[in-house]
Amino acid sequence: MPKNSLAYLEKMNLPDDLKKLNYSQCEALCRDIRQKLIDTVSKNGGHLASNLGVVELSLAVHRVFDSPADKIVWDVGHQSYTHKILTGRADKFDRLRKENGISGFCRPDESVHDAFISGHSSNSVSAALGIATAMKIHGDNHSAVAILGDGAFTGGLVYEGLNNAGKSDTNLVIILNHNEMSISKNVGSVAKYLSSIRTTERYHKTKNVVERTLDKTPLLGKPLKKAIKGSKNAVKNALLHSTMFEDLGLEYIGPLDGHNLQELEHGLAVAKALHRPVLVHVNTVKGKGYAPAENNPGEYHGVGSFEIATGNPDVVTSDSFSSVFGKELTKLGEENKNICAITAAMKYGTGLQHFSKAYPKRFFDVGIAEGHAVTFCGGLASMGMIPVFAVYSSFLQRGYDELIHDLAICNTHAVIGVDRAGIVGDDGETHQGIFDVPFLTSIPNTTIYSPSCYEELRLCLNKAVNEDSGIVAVRYPRGNDKSKYDKSQVNTFYEYNDNGNGVLIVTYGRLYNNVLGACEILKNNQIECDTLKLVKIFPMEDEIIDIISSYKLVFFFEESYYHGSISEKYAAVCSNIAPVAIDNFVKHGNANDLLDELGLSAQKMADQIKDFLKYE
Amino acid sequence: MPKNSLAYLEKMNLPDDLKKLNYSQCEALCRDIRQKLIDTVSKNGGHLASNLGVVELSLAVHRVFDSPADKIVWDVGHQSYTHKILTGRADKFDRLRKENGISGFCRPDESVHDAFISGHSSNSVSAALGIATAMKIHGDNHSAVAILGDGAFTGGLVYEGLNNAGKSDTNLVIILNHNEMSISKNVGSVAKYLSSIRTTERYHKTKNVVERTLDKTPLLGKPLKKAIKGSKNAVKNALLHSTMFEDLGLEYIGPLDGHNLQELEHGLAVAKALHRPVLVHVNTVKGKGYAPAENNPGEYHGVGSFEIATGNPDVVTSDSFSSVFGKELTKLGEENKNICAITAAMKYGTGLQHFSKAYPKRFFDVGIAEGHAVTFCGGLASMGMIPVFAVYSSFLQRGYDELIHDLAICNTHAVIGVDRAGIVGDDGETHQGIFDVPFLTSIPNTTIYSPSCYEELRLCLNKAVNEDSGIVAVRYPRGNDKSKYDKSQVNTFYEYNDNGNGVLIVTYGRLYNNVLGACEILKNNQIECDTLKLVKIFPMEDEIIDIISSYKLVFFFEESYYHGSISEKYAAVCSNIAPVAIDNFVKHGNANDLLDELGLSAQKMADQIKDFLKYE
Repeated sequence: MPKNSLAYLEKMNLPDDLKKLNYSQCEALCRDIRQKLIDTVSKNGGHLASNLGVVELSLAVHRVFDSPADKIVWDVGHQSYTHKILTGRADKFDRLRKENGISGFCRPDESVHDAFISGHSSNSVSAALGIATAMKIHGDNHSAVAILGDGAFTGGLVYEGLNNAGKSDTNLVIILNHNEMSISKNVGSVAKYLSSIRTTERYHKTKNVVERTLDKTPLLGKPLKKAIKGSKNAVKNALLHSTMFEDLGLEYIGPLDGHNLQELEHGLAVAKALHRPVLVHVNTVKGKGYAPAENNPGEYHGVGSFEIATGNPDVVTSDSFSSVFGKELTKLGEENKNICAITAAMKYGTGLQHFSKAYPKRFFDVGIAEGHAVTFCGGLASMGMIPVFAVYSSFLQRGYDELIHDLAICNTHAVIGVDRAGIVGDDGETHQGIFDVPFLTSIPNTTIYSPSCYEELRLCLNKAVNEDSGIVAVRYPRGNDKSKYDKSQVNTFYEYNDNGNGVLIVTYGRLYNNVLGACEILKNNQIECDTLKLVKIFPMEDEIIDIISSYKLVFFFEESYYHGSISEKYAAVCSNIAPVAIDNFVKHGNANDLLDELGLSAQKMADQIKDFLKYE
Repeated sequence: MPKNSLAYLEKMNLPDDLKKLNYSQCEALCRDIRQKLIDTVSKNGGHLASNLGVVELSLAVHRVFDSPADKIVWDVGHQSYTHKILTGRADKFDRLRKENGISGFCRPDESVHDAFISGHSSNSVSAALGIATAMKIHGDNHSAVAILGDGAFTGGLVYEGLNNAGKSDTNLVIILNHNEMSISKNVGSVAKYLSSIRTTERYHKTKNVVERTLDKTPLLGKPLKKAIKGSKNAVKNALLHSTMFEDLGLEYIGPLDGHNLQELEHGLAVAKALHRPVLVHVNTVKGKGYAPAENNPGEYHGVGSFEIATGNPDVVTSDSFSSVFGKELTKLGEENKNICAITAAMKYGTGLQHFSKAYPKRFFDVGIAEGHAVTFCGGLASMGMIPVFAVYSSFLQRGYDELIHDLAICNTHAVIGVDRAGIVGDDGETHQGIFDVPFLTSIPNTTIYSPSCYEELRLCLNKAVNEDSGIVAVRYPRGNDKSKYDKSQVNTFYEYNDNGNGVLIVTYGRLYNNVLGACEILKNNQIECDTLKLVKIFPMEDEIIDIISSYKLVFFFEESYYHGSISEKYAAVCSNIAPVAIDNFVKHGNANDLLDELGLSAQKMADQIKDFLKYE
């Protein structure tokens, strides 16, 4: 589709332009934006269904509020694509999620309109409350707006935020984007409760609070009041009898039709005019406007590139570390009826769909609630079950205290499948799995495996479930196994290639492929190295220390943040190690390019070793 | 009071004994237990007010349920003293919180009746749900019982648990001990909501669910039904119209009078008989039965030893690191109107009462919600405020992800006052502050100070607030400053005593006192050492590396878990360091005794150095 067909979109730049449009022009603009979203995501991959669902909502927010004076906080910013298009980034949108292009999430350093960072779920209410509180202290009468899905509502952080918001007397507007989906079909009692509000029509006429407030608002009040009185039910009957949110001290407006721009604008204008904490409940359809995504919103949550006409993915997904993990666990679950599998809203992402189908009674999707997942594992394990919690590395950070308190202190046996460990690439610094090694090694009674190929992953998972004790983490990267080396020696401890050379290269996980590549490059430069691939990376082992200590020079390459890394630990007991690990947050981009920049590609590994030996 | 006056208590051993008593015997037993609680805590210190409040509730739980077949999970186990007395530990109760005595919290390795570990708030619902789920899988028809206060209800983990409990179809009984206090007066909308249930008398007659269930329960059902029909309002009208808890899919029973044993037993029997997730709302009076504690429950939350007749503490509290921190922050708050102070339900514990009185609009008690506190700081800081979050080291573990995601990625300036850093002693392994160095150093853009005396604490706080950027943690121990060394050189970087000796001792924080003591001991053995006291302990500094590298032998003593410690980090870049840090969880006991066992007393430091030099 030629770009110049998006006539309305091309005229747009900043939110001010948006306010000049009439409703029919807005409708045309929404069509343009949807086209742009589908075009771009079909090429670059990204989050589609959630973004298609909030096109009208994004317009309404930017027509009613004045960003950046009003602060818009998008929870899990992957629903912010339309927001990005409307705030001066339409021309850069083609570079979505590309290195040096715009991020797939909100970033304050990318735009003044991105009021807060947003990659991990459920932080928007707390952040917006902080912003609204600062405004109050400064006597600034603008609003802070948090926009979050019902998926984010399963996270405890939202509840902590709501508990503090209700009594805060701030200009805080919380927009609940209710589509009955987070990443997979939403779970838990809160989701059920929200839907009960949706389906029962138990509105009551009004609590007068809106009218009273509007009467007191000199400029906006009267016209708004008129508009509201003339509008449809959902706004006129805006305040529901007694919702959980009113119990928590918030005003409640809704549910509004999230694809009716006029209704949305009226509801948000009321919320803004109230000048106190309000929750606006908006019903949207995930994937709206693109049939394949509307029909299968789960599959179009986060996608790679695909063919627009059919919705078919460009690359048919083969096995991945996640799916191999999920299938192996399903096999183990057949042999041992005490094995339970737990996910925090990532059933498909972690490959647990196989287990969930085979043993529905031993499968638990707890929602976006990693802390609960860990403590729940502790409860299960205390009764003799073997809980296996599969979770992305960066999200397990949410369970750090629970790992210490509810598992490690009692030396409880629980297995953590740490998915997306290491560089994940396109999703950027909020999603890179570079902290699990530092924080897991800081927890007593914890063992960590980092298999480098599918075969090792299966062996490690078996050992973790059936032989080990305490917390056992098996960490593996995003994507599939590209290793081509000889698998005859795979085991769960280490693989040492001792050819009597003076230089040893140590690594673990998928980086072993790059180490082998580096060895090839170095060989062509007449430099021969021995290699040591760790599989059980922690606790440290005397055997490994002995091997390392027997060399004059050891390079240790590691896909982890340096402070707290395995290379740092061995360096502390062996005096001959040059660690190469990650020394800061890592932005988004292609994973291989990022590894290269970090000095962890085969070529860069070889270069560093060559340079070092040159000056020795 | 002579021990033999506690006639009823002496006859008690296990819960089975309890079931044989009639109500008037139970009342006498309650009196005995209260006496025992007051006697013991007045000598050993501990938690008093919360325990006096749940004497009847503890009896009722153990008379209705069958521990250990039914699993009782006490949230923040410091309310479990009566439970301990009733489950075979009455004779050991004199050794409460003493080394090798019983713990002040629940510990599964101490008794089969302690179903789960409990030192950190809000984990009980998740843990009990895990237990109840395992029972369901095993076809075990017993119950899992979680008992938690309204303070714990401010933590997001409880909400995550409730969201999963509602639909779980398990025998889960959640008892909400509602006393309108957590540690200080409870905050937030949920607390207000709970009190609204207490004060409005909006019971409705019944939902029949109780009777229907009881009809289906062959053995217990009929007699129970009769008992209920004959009992007072609170049970007869047990099910409230529509509470937040029912919205979340739980049955609701209450509010019950928490000091009326008969009413409690009826309510709990109904809850047990329902065989599905129930919330039982119990109103109690914190400090019940001891006037000083009833009048000032906040002051009698956690106490040192005191005189029973007057309630006066044996040691009048002088300054502590916490109070010096709080007073200095108050001074800074006068000079800079952007400074905000945040606590997670520890206003007094962290010394923030001074700030809260002086600047109520810039002071925020967010409840037991450390994750929210950190993200809220991020929101405040994004608007130019300088948030200072004072929090106990072991509870900051709850904010690990938020520190990374909501502060560090954007290099946001926020100050964390890490109170109770290092060994805290009596409260045991759930409360030792030995992980903050490992997890804070794993976060990019973080600076850590560890002052060793009040003067340094003030300097570090000033620098953290007024000069530094990013996350700045100032960590300090529980208790007061016992240092006697010369303070003329105090600064925020380091203090180096170079007397040209071959051995260097490095440390930071209060351990510097012990290092100086060790030097004295060694001097008497004709061994002279240089010393290096770090104040800014992280990031590492080249100047420090140069000093350390200039020695043949360096001992680095550190009150932190070893993996991720500062000594490990310097050892990784300097080859001459012998680190002495902590290599496991540390149980409860006197802090000085524990430091001695860990090799961190002056004597043990000296011994280790002597031994090493002997064999060199």
